[in-house]
Amino acid sequence: MLAPGSTIGILGGGQLARMMALAAAPLGFRVHILAPESDCPAADVSAFHLCADYTNEAALEQFAGGVDAVTYEFENVPLVAARILANRVPIWPDPHALAVSQDRLVEKQFLNRSGLATAPFEPIDHADQIPLALVRLGLPAILKTRRMGYDGKGQVLIRSADEAARAFAAIGQSPAVLEGFVSFQREISVIAARAISGQIACYDPAWNRHDDHILRQSLIPSGCGPEIESDALAKAKKIAEALNYVGVLGIEFFVTADGLLINEIAPRVHNSGHWTIDGCALSQFEQHIRCVAGWPLGPVIRHADAIMDNLIGDDVLNWAELAHDPTARLHLYAKGSPRPGRKMGHVTRLYPIGQRPE
Amino acid sequence: MLAPGSTIGILGGGQLARMMALAAAPLGFRVHILAPESDCPAADVSAFHLCADYTNEAALEQFAGGVDAVTYEFENVPLVAARILANRVPIWPDPHALAVSQDRLVEKQFLNRSGLATAPFEPIDHADQIPLALVRLGLPAILKTRRMGYDGKGQVLIRSADEAARAFAAIGQSPAVLEGFVSFQREISVIAARAISGQIACYDPAWNRHDDHILRQSLIPSGCGPEIESDALAKAKKIAEALNYVGVLGIEFFVTADGLLINEIAPRVHNSGHWTIDGCALSQFEQHIRCVAGWPLGPVIRHADAIMDNLIGDDVLNWAELAHDPTARLHLYAKGSPRPGRKMGHVTRLYPIGQRPE
Repeated sequence: MLAPGSTIGILGGGQLARMMALAAAPLGFRVHILAPESDCPAADVSAFHLCADYTNEAALEQFAGGVDAVTYEFENVPLVAARILANRVPIWPDPHALAVSQDRLVEKQFLNRSGLATAPFEPIDHADQIPLALVRLGLPAILKTRRMGYDGKGQVLIRSADEAARAFAAIGQSPAVLEGFVSFQREISVIAARAISGQIACYDPAWNRHDDHILRQSLIPSGCGPEIESDALAKAKKIAEALNYVGVLGIEFFVTADGLLINEIAPRVHNSGHWTIDGCALSQFEQHIRCVAGWPLGPVIRHADAIMDNLIGDDVLNWAELAHDPTARLHLYAKGSPRPGRKMGHVTRLYPIGQRPE
Repeated sequence: MLAPGSTIGILGGGQLARMMALAAAPLGFRVHILAPESDCPAADVSAFHLCADYTNEAALEQFAGGVDAVTYEFENVPLVAARILANRVPIWPDPHALAVSQDRLVEKQFLNRSGLATAPFEPIDHADQIPLALVRLGLPAILKTRRMGYDGKGQVLIRSADEAARAFAAIGQSPAVLEGFVSFQREISVIAARAISGQIACYDPAWNRHDDHILRQSLIPSGCGPEIESDALAKAKKIAEALNYVGVLGIEFFVTADGLLINEIAPRVHNSGHWTIDGCALSQFEQHIRCVAGWPLGPVIRHADAIMDNLIGDDVLNWAELAHDPTARLHLYAKGSPRPGRKMGHVTRLYPIGQRPE
């Protein structure tokens, strides 16, 4: 167990690192950010900020010398950086989990090998593989880059076989995965935490609503009923164990007529778990810091139902109205001026257990 | 109303400033600390730290130029500093509230003038005034310096008239107040918040237990019953209004057979309100920042009963045991090595409403 007074390094300086830093402080930890932006949301609430590129080896060495453990706020940390750090200092989750989740193809193969269902898929390296894959998967289908996709970036819907070449061009002719279209009732997610000891705990699943591929709202409880929820929790635990994972992990599921399919896994704290700051004794952010520090997990019990709304782009300009709303727990990320599609903050509203509106 | 992105200045860099900074971040504010210590608990979680003495005028000017509003974490800020800043930038609470609470005599006179009972007292400027004052107040009595006393420092118990000279020497022959001994059932406190608009709200009173003059434990609810509690809330509101106060204010009461006496007022967030971080939707720290920023108050409703234990001196060495205790919400102040009597952190335990143990 890292003693209070130790320093935790975080790769990345956005809102997830910011909320991790805010959760690390009450445990007595200092936070050291490594991020290339000179001004970033996490640096304002952290003891140290090394402003350098993730592939700057000298900076990585310096960073490793100043921290007692390392974690990350995003899954697209260059693997080489994670591996350089791993030679010097404990790093959680293990870079192996990054390697799996950075590549949609590797991730889906890992999940299927672990006995967990995903949408049907075919690997695509050239546009001319698409028509045959469409025969197997049916129409419509979604072409997604294997790497670096998030919030709908790097993906395109294919409605007919003759769109193949244009679709492959639209994603930059990158190695890709073609996914069969899944008709789902809703998307839910589970925030799982696994300690170095192997202890696992999951927060109650959230029902996630998206707008234009960006998470708009998470509702807790998920409204899926106890059977689907316990199936989701069991699958989340299975994934955390199969990855020998340490830290907090977000798992997105499609709820279909045939059961749960796994959409994707995020080896980090997750937007759909932000409600835990206000709705639980102990948030996903503190839970993650506890794991990174080798501490035992804390309780995941919630004391309320919750609805979390992201503040995207100009939504944040309503801050004064939200400040006057006694039901709104406001969380702003101090990102400066809003841009369309940019997550600027979130708002959580709590309800007595059993009284969440739709 | 200060917009998110604004900078709030705090005079002082200890645990109260640290917890204010942690509460300011989710509202989108940056925090600028002014404190003479090069390494202080608040600086690790604040965007800026100006390391300078509170009476350094050039530093105060520089600080004023970098902030949009100012507040303080302790009542013993030199008044001259508060007044220099007040000429440049909004400062809350008003330096007048500091002036009142910095001097026990002025404070007690203010309270009595406002129709609020205190322990009986006599001003003392020379040791030879003590015997006559003892005739009026009875024995035992407590001699307290008018200024700079906290956690039992600057006070001495007088058991007989012939201890007068020694007692006055023990408090450094400073201007003092002699207080008649009050036989009280318990001490309770109210955390009140008053917005710039005049809106007032109070958290439920806490029952405070001390060891060696240092707050050891706060229990919520106070166990005094609804009549005494509503009297305490009414008196707290009266004080906030009489001071035209803006911000959070801690008021300590003695519960006696004859009703409530006011022990002292603290023009700042208060140790006996730390439980609000875990027990309420919105903590005293966020409430104070909202006031300083000209925002409306948020709700003061609690969702649990609570017991808060201070971690004093070596108590903090039990951190690993506390990390394993699922009922303990840990708050460490990152103060380095423990010293006897030093507040190193606190622990809050929550209980369902109505189920707090004694």
